[in-house]
Amino acid sequence: MKKLINAVEDVVKEQLEGLATAHPDVLKVNFEPYYVYRADAPVQGKVALISGGGSGHEPMHGGFVGMGMLSAACPGEVFTSPTPDQMYEAAKAVDGGAGVLFLAKNYTGDVLNFEMAAELAYADGIKVQSILIDDDAAVKDSLYTAGRRGVGTTVLVEKIAGAAAEAGYNLKQCADLARKVNQYGRSLGMAITSCTVPAAGKPTFELGDDEYEFGIGIHGEPGRERLKMQTADEITEKMALAIIEDGAYTRTVREWDNDKGEWYDLELTDEPFKAGDKVIAFVNSMGGTPVSELYAVYRKLTQVCEAKGLTIVRNLIGPYITSLEMQGMSITLLKVDDEILKFWDAPVKTPGLRWGV
Amino acid sequence: MKKLINAVEDVVKEQLEGLATAHPDVLKVNFEPYYVYRADAPVQGKVALISGGGSGHEPMHGGFVGMGMLSAACPGEVFTSPTPDQMYEAAKAVDGGAGVLFLAKNYTGDVLNFEMAAELAYADGIKVQSILIDDDAAVKDSLYTAGRRGVGTTVLVEKIAGAAAEAGYNLKQCADLARKVNQYGRSLGMAITSCTVPAAGKPTFELGDDEYEFGIGIHGEPGRERLKMQTADEITEKMALAIIEDGAYTRTVREWDNDKGEWYDLELTDEPFKAGDKVIAFVNSMGGTPVSELYAVYRKLTQVCEAKGLTIVRNLIGPYITSLEMQGMSITLLKVDDEILKFWDAPVKTPGLRWGV
Repeated sequence: MKKLINAVEDVVKEQLEGLATAHPDVLKVNFEPYYVYRADAPVQGKVALISGGGSGHEPMHGGFVGMGMLSAACPGEVFTSPTPDQMYEAAKAVDGGAGVLFLAKNYTGDVLNFEMAAELAYADGIKVQSILIDDDAAVKDSLYTAGRRGVGTTVLVEKIAGAAAEAGYNLKQCADLARKVNQYGRSLGMAITSCTVPAAGKPTFELGDDEYEFGIGIHGEPGRERLKMQTADEITEKMALAIIEDGAYTRTVREWDNDKGEWYDLELTDEPFKAGDKVIAFVNSMGGTPVSELYAVYRKLTQVCEAKGLTIVRNLIGPYITSLEMQGMSITLLKVDDEILKFWDAPVKTPGLRWGV
Repeated sequence: MKKLINAVEDVVKEQLEGLATAHPDVLKVNFEPYYVYRADAPVQGKVALISGGGSGHEPMHGGFVGMGMLSAACPGEVFTSPTPDQMYEAAKAVDGGAGVLFLAKNYTGDVLNFEMAAELAYADGIKVQSILIDDDAAVKDSLYTAGRRGVGTTVLVEKIAGAAAEAGYNLKQCADLARKVNQYGRSLGMAITSCTVPAAGKPTFELGDDEYEFGIGIHGEPGRERLKMQTADEITEKMALAIIEDGAYTRTVREWDNDKGEWYDLELTDEPFKAGDKVIAFVNSMGGTPVSELYAVYRKLTQVCEAKGLTIVRNLIGPYITSLEMQGMSITLLKVDDEILKFWDAPVKTPGLRWGV
């Protein structure tokens, strides 16, 4: 294993030290327990967005803390869920009286720990809502979770709901918007190489010199199938069609009732894309794939979308939700309406995503 | 070779098609010959900055075309110099009457072809100046050039001189500023893996599982030495000290006299860093190294700078001047004064670098 690291047990701590040192105008880092939070937190009267998950997906989530996006991010060890006390302490640090919105990606450990944190924060008198991100169209169940995994749409939810909070949306409005964005977004990933978790010291999986994994998760968990390597056009078309032609998706999620102080079940159905939809197209590097190749993918993606009647109105192209140094990419399509588009275009200032300011 | 590409001979063309499709509000692409240019070019009365070089370093240069940075970029095939007609045609397309400033990295082919383009443009009545970027402190001479190579400082020159042109600097003022930024900047790179040029189909070089290349160039050309793998702290300290303790560097460059219509020799000496200097610190991924590891490097870099009396006043951390999917990183330190800092902070809107707008 060759990486730019020191001791394996210090990887997350030292990256966080670097992040804090580099961006003191935007964020701070608490080290016991770990959470990254806005330098100006708590912002009185503003809903606070908190996300988190295992490290190794940078810039997500810590790099998305700042004006117009997250109020706090809770990093676990590499590919390991953060603990409930991280989200709980972060909630206390950033709540400005308008409540906190937890954004949890659908991995069993993350979901459980965010739920425990919600109960702890509620018990302290903090208003809480919690939204699950489960946008991965690749597989129904996976190595780390039941149901669809939370992947690329997470970045878009954080941006859009973050802008809404900045604009004065209340907690319920932010939660409704975040839920909608998750339901409007679908993703699919692929890998041509594995990544190596520092603590493991060897590649998570092996791929032949002529193979790629179609539908891979952001931790290297298996996808739909292992295929012989194809051209960028073939791979892009296969992925884009799998997203666009994905059927309705129904599942039951648990959300927190802040009035009653209890969890309740909510059945949600994501409708398929249809001709005439306007979309944000997000082409994401898994970490080791250079941006030049992403542009070749984007070129073909625009052709497939056009053929299926989808109009790409905005795009995001680069490494935003990664799997360490894995080579590969993911595509996310997000159906937009005027509300989503307005908040997508709003200013954002974070280490990982910035415009308008 | 596994890459997200189609036919090898279409790699550059298809990436440019993707770039043009993704960012029509910012730039356009001319395909015969290749050049990327601002969507609003020519801007009357504004000096036009033109850079270029082999492809494979994206987002540099095409991704730096836009408001506040380059007016045009001329991409060659992967790791291959662009031809004089590219820079000449680009100059005609973007000159708004105030002249064009060519920014050439010091590689023999690039330098020759930029010089021919300058003569062609001058013959057409376009005012021209040309500045050489040669900031690589690793080696004196290298595989592709005599003298120091042009590497990380290029990104900073393009940003800073681009902002000055936007602010109304005339051609001589832009050239003087670009020359100063190059003289104030020093870089050094390292690699832990090779990259694979599509047309070659195999890695450019081989590195052992326990080795890294110290002082590597952005095309994988050899550096100072091949070393046993070290920790991020050890590597960062070694690189930072090599930059900070680098002595005065004197060489003769050729610049274009726009009044006389001829080249002349100019002796330039770059002074070493000294305690008390304020610097911009740029930690760059070679493409395959994830941003998380760059933050660990930045953490140590701040410690070394502090110990040597340098104050980091701004930073840039991410993949900006890459070598395809090579894993590794480079460090650039740029001494700043008020003029440089003002233009660094000015708004920029390009696919690869954006803030303030």
